[in-house]
Amino acid sequence: MIVSVIGGHECTDEIAAVAFDVGKVIAQSGHILACGGLTGVMEHACRGAKSAQGTTIGILPSTDKRDANPYVDVVIPTGIGLARNMIVVLSADVVVAIGGSYGTLSEIAYALQFHKKVFALKTRWHVSDEIEALDDAHSLAERLKLL
Amino acid sequence: MIVSVIGGHECTDEIAAVAFDVGKVIAQSGHILACGGLTGVMEHACRGAKSAQGTTIGILPSTDKRDANPYVDVVIPTGIGLARNMIVVLSADVVVAIGGSYGTLSEIAYALQFHKKVFALKTRWHVSDEIEALDDAHSLAERLKLL
Amino acid sequence: MIVSVIGGHECTDEIAAVAFDVGKVIAQSGHILACGGLTGVMEHACRGAKSAQGTTIGILPSTDKRDANPYVDVVIPTGIGLARNMIVVLSADVVVAIGGSYGTLSEIAYALQFHKKVFALKTRWHVSDEIEALDDAHSLAERLKLL
Amino acid sequence: MIVSVIGGHECTDEIAAVAFDVGKVIAQSGHILACGGLTGVMEHACRGAKSAQGTTIGILPSTDKRDANPYVDVVIPTGIGLARNMIVVLSADVVVAIGGSYGTLSEIAYALQFHKKVFALKTRWHVSDEIEALDDAHSLAERLKLL
Repeated sequence: MIVSVIGGHECTDEIAAVAFDVGKVIAQSGHILACGGLTGVMEHACRGAKSAQGTTIGILPSTDKRDANPYVDVVIPTGIGLARNMIVVLSADVVVAIGGSYGTLSEIAYALQFHKKVFALKTRWHVSDEIEALDDAHSLAERLKLL
Repeated sequence: MIVSVIGGHECTDEIAAVAFDVGKVIAQSGHILACGGLTGVMEHACRGAKSAQGTTIGILPSTDKRDANPYVDVVIPTGIGLARNMIVVLSADVVVAIGGSYGTLSEIAYALQFHKKVFALKTRWHVSDEIEALDDAHSLAERLKLL
Repeated sequence: MIVSVIGGHECTDEIAAVAFDVGKVIAQSGHILACGGLTGVMEHACRGAKSAQGTTIGILPSTDKRDANPYVDVVIPTGIGLARNMIVVLSADVVVAIGGSYGTLSEIAYALQFHKKVFALKTRWHVSDEIEALDDAHSLAERLKLL
Repeated sequence: MIVSVIGGHECTDEIAAVAFDVGKVIAQSGHILACGGLTGVMEHACRGAKSAQGTTIGILPSTDKRDANPYVDVVIPTGIGLARNMIVVLSADVVVAIGGSYGTLSEIAYALQFHKKVFALKTRWHVSDEIEALDDAHSLAERLKLL
């Protein structure tokens, strides 16, 4: 499966740690991690996935591969700006939201519209009962086993 | 100004009436109405604008101009699917959300991210204090005068 | 009808004069002019249309309305970069190519793929017999009457 | 490197054989193959890459992963229709055009605009001296070694 991690390009240390653990869990579960390819939650999650020999995909807003964080294996520079948020979600079988601001909200909205399973950690965007809140990356590992 | 009306392609009679009134107010205020160009809130708002000799723009997800509702003057068939939600918002100086489901939520998220003024009528998406809730189209008319 | 004018954001004086005349002819023929909204051929065509009291639409690559040239009436900031070339073409009933480089070629390709009528003036992109070469704006005026 | 193969979703047996060989060469050269993910040249190239244990990426126009041909490893459903042509090109370090119609021409145009190296086999789109024509997949193998 491809698991897309969505979250802000800026984040607190606490959110960074959660993102790292989530990335690691995704890799350890045998899944590919996709994300928006930039800094913050995206980079920490990619770093976590690489710490467990996972594969990472970064779907960039810009046209330039060099904008990807150093933990992205496959860089997809879309050149369509924040409209790429839709592609991050469409590429996923499962979406994991961590923290995040309005960009993350647009991704959650697209995820719900396209009937993707959405897990949420430490996010304020509890906009639907269809989103399943999780306490930590360990819970995510358990839930991914059941999908 | 261009005022973009966002809302579902299906809606109740109550929401349809609000959308009609909002479209009429936008036209009477001398503004251009933009929207996603389809049925539901989009069509009722366009119909309202045309009832007051306004100008309407429909920014379609599809490649086919014929998918626009009959009250759209200028049809922009984007061919980029629901990624066009971002363009509906970017085209606006002011965004008015009426009712709506996840598609509308993605548009609200983009509007907040791009620092657009967002008014909301009869919507459940009160996701930010930056959104200004209004009771009816009359209130919108008053608020548009002040911008 | 909407007539989209495509061409480079840089152009020679000769091409600029042709673009101006084409814009004027489109307005005088009672049609709306659409384009990519920037400088060069786009700006000269818009200026021509406004000289004849026409209406102009600018479909920008960026997210910022202020990037439009001063002769654009309706600004659509798409935020999707050069992927907006497809939208410039899809918005058209008829496409007129003037000069132009690779960006114009991508627009011609999309126009042919979506079965739009393409007229060409002073362009090197004679990539298909489906493109109809014209000598000048006067010829375009004659041809638009017949559509 | 990522090598994007562009070409029509319908093709002759001769073009299919070339596409298969090109895909095989890309994999044997140690590169990842990207393409539009559908049938025709895209499918034959992916099949060639998989015959040599390569990795393939399919960047779809639709929102549905199931639209990918069976030889795609990583499916990116963009949901932005033919605007995804730009992303197929942007994802590439090198572009190989095989046969193809107007869709391929739009991709060649984007490739040239974004300064990508373009090789061409059996295509009629010799629109620029910047495109390097090759006789067969063997020549491509030689050229890829030099990049």
